[in-house]
Amino acid sequence: MTFTTAHLSMSLDGYVAGPDQSLDQPLGRDGISLHRWHIGPDDERHEVDVRWSDRILRPGCSYVMGRNMFGPVRGPWDTWPEEWRGWWGEEPPYHAPVFVLTHHEHEPIEMAGGTTFHFVTGGFDEALRLARAASGGDVDIAGGASAVRQALGAGELDELTLDVVPVVLGAGERLLDGSVRPSLELVESESSPLATHVRYRVG
Amino acid sequence: MTFTTAHLSMSLDGYVAGPDQSLDQPLGRDGISLHRWHIGPDDERHEVDVRWSDRILRPGCSYVMGRNMFGPVRGPWDTWPEEWRGWWGEEPPYHAPVFVLTHHEHEPIEMAGGTTFHFVTGGFDEALRLARAASGGDVDIAGGASAVRQALGAGELDELTLDVVPVVLGAGERLLDGSVRPSLELVESESSPLATHVRYRVG
Repeated sequence: MTFTTAHLSMSLDGYVAGPDQSLDQPLGRDGISLHRWHIGPDDERHEVDVRWSDRILRPGCSYVMGRNMFGPVRGPWDTWPEEWRGWWGEEPPYHAPVFVLTHHEHEPIEMAGGTTFHFVTGGFDEALRLARAASGGDVDIAGGASAVRQALGAGELDELTLDVVPVVLGAGERLLDGSVRPSLELVESESSPLATHVRYRVG
Repeated sequence: MTFTTAHLSMSLDGYVAGPDQSLDQPLGRDGISLHRWHIGPDDERHEVDVRWSDRILRPGCSYVMGRNMFGPVRGPWDTWPEEWRGWWGEEPPYHAPVFVLTHHEHEPIEMAGGTTFHFVTGGFDEALRLARAASGGDVDIAGGASAVRQALGAGELDELTLDVVPVVLGAGERLLDGSVRPSLELVESESSPLATHVRYRVG
């Protein structure tokens, strides 16, 4: 029994990250504007946003992640001055195995708190298989756009949650670029001033 | 005192019409899939969809409409075999003056039920001025994408309502193509299985 989800914040024009990702701008130019709804202390945010941000990470699952979501390093890992260990400091919020898609081999990196980054060079299907084996079947595709499209293209995504944020980025990483046309069915939806949260079942 | 709105159905990938508009496909290929939520008898539709479809037309306002929304005719009007009088039959649902943006002059067309199509060759600003004069200030930009972007670009839109439909068109007329980046503030939102309806104030 497997269950595979993805949960992304998306601009009104369909972008899940801004352009020009770099060490200083992990989410690309203006990409941070997609995430204001879940940043900051709970008691300073809208109750709807608190409720939906509690669902970004799912206890008990493992994760599949695209390489650009893991870091700004491009090409072979050893071109970076020191070992890149993710954007999240020594204790990433995943507390679970995370399978990073890459074309370049890398030993696993064990972090504090139960997160281990595994590097998978065999493609999306292999990463999903390993992630399912690690968790017993429950997997979240953490992002970015390309990894989620690969899950949709493979027919392996069961649920897609989008936080539609009323900003227009104009450029960046588009989630639905026309290469996949999933059949989606609304399960539930709720809005705060900062985002319209929608959970879809993928047909 | 003026008040200017627009209300469009949009796919999850940002299109408000499919590609290849023609006489047989007024909304472009698959464009009809954006409008299922407001087609059919009220008692066969979701109550949420009935409520929001009651807001597509606004009694008391006049309308501005792009030429492609008015019809499939391109270039001079007399290249079409007979006079094109819109997609809506002899009694269009507007019951008000409708100002159609065009590069080619055309006498007004008076339809049954109070709708008159006026043809404006002086550009969006002139069409909006005429529409405001006709109604006393209350105007709805009926569509399509380009007309709404012109209203946003001119800083003249007060409210934008989007019915976000969980389909992926992959091609067509994109509403937010990056040429305008409005500041939007959510006013209210409600979902049915067929659409997530969101009303934004334009800042």
